[in-house]
Amino acid sequence: MIGELVSQLPGWLWRDSVWLALDRFGILIGDLFLLAAIVGVLRRDRVKAWFRRNQFPRIGGVASVDPSNVAGLLLLVSRLEVPKWLLQELRPQAIALVHTPESRRIADEIATYGAAMGIQCCGDVCVDDPDDPQASHAAVGMLIERLLKQFPREQCAVDTTGGKLPMSLGAFMAAEEAGVPSLYVSADFDARLRRPRPGTARVVRLSSPY
Amino acid sequence: MIGELVSQLPGWLWRDSVWLALDRFGILIGDLFLLAAIVGVLRRDRVKAWFRRNQFPRIGGVASVDPSNVAGLLLLVSRLEVPKWLLQELRPQAIALVHTPESRRIADEIATYGAAMGIQCCGDVCVDDPDDPQASHAAVGMLIERLLKQFPREQCAVDTTGGKLPMSLGAFMAAEEAGVPSLYVSADFDARLRRPRPGTARVVRLSSPY
Repeated sequence: MIGELVSQLPGWLWRDSVWLALDRFGILIGDLFLLAAIVGVLRRDRVKAWFRRNQFPRIGGVASVDPSNVAGLLLLVSRLEVPKWLLQELRPQAIALVHTPESRRIADEIATYGAAMGIQCCGDVCVDDPDDPQASHAAVGMLIERLLKQFPREQCAVDTTGGKLPMSLGAFMAAEEAGVPSLYVSADFDARLRRPRPGTARVVRLSSPY
Repeated sequence: MIGELVSQLPGWLWRDSVWLALDRFGILIGDLFLLAAIVGVLRRDRVKAWFRRNQFPRIGGVASVDPSNVAGLLLLVSRLEVPKWLLQELRPQAIALVHTPESRRIADEIATYGAAMGIQCCGDVCVDDPDDPQASHAAVGMLIERLLKQFPREQCAVDTTGGKLPMSLGAFMAAEEAGVPSLYVSADFDARLRRPRPGTARVVRLSSPY
């Protein structure tokens, strides 16, 4: 069987020069890989960065968290209206709050408002510098871990609406690292009254890691 | 040499029961890996999500982009002051602008202001819905690609200061995916004049992918 197959192969395949050429081709490719490996070791940070580059396959659209199924909700606090609306809309079982020294009083009000609805507050962290994304990232990361001890990942969410942009981005990064979806509450703004117009609010999905 | 080494090994190592135990240990571990592989195939989305979970190793702190070395700068447009200040501060060679229908006029003013400084505008994209992170993500991604054709990745940056939060987050995600650092301009806000107080602005690093 194999003998038949071999006898049908062309004669030049058995010449030594052919095998020598194939061998040298292998040597060349091997050397190229070796060079690439050396470059890779020398520039390993760039290689790592390329492999690890962040991906956001699910951006925008309708909120992927089922509103009737958000158990643990983390909120960035700056105003009172949006968190109140969100608690009524999502009715979570527990919340965690990140605020600044200026919004501490509002965070307390939200916790009281939640408690009256039967929502447990599992913690609040004060971020001193609202311009430092690292501070907000650390605070949100810590509180997400606390929520994840009580609820599965699929039933948690981070609302990035409040706070200054660096706080929101820090919170977003912590949510992505923990594999928790992030939300944003969009509402038409009443320029005259300087507050969101009631009835226009909706939840926007920012990114869902799963 | 090898014979000497072997003769120094203890006698119990050659008993059949020892090798049988080692073999069975291997069988158990192999079965566990097999089970893990089957679970991994069944829950492959979760396994993929875990492997792909985004990481942000460099958040916050002083802007890592050397201000004297930013060649390509992408800006989200909403006000005029911050982009003007940033152009003076970083003096890029080229800019790209993302704006909304409302801020189109301001984007034109920024392009004119840049042109007077000798800064080329390589494109502007209008995002119709400032609440849609996906739209901003697509616009920023397209413009980053255009900047990367002219300048190396290390000399590009995305300023997320302007626009609404979903726009900034979309821009941030596009920057992370392209491996380009993202910035934020922080300034003390003058509540009375309703504009940033001059002289207090500084560039905050949000995240550097490299």
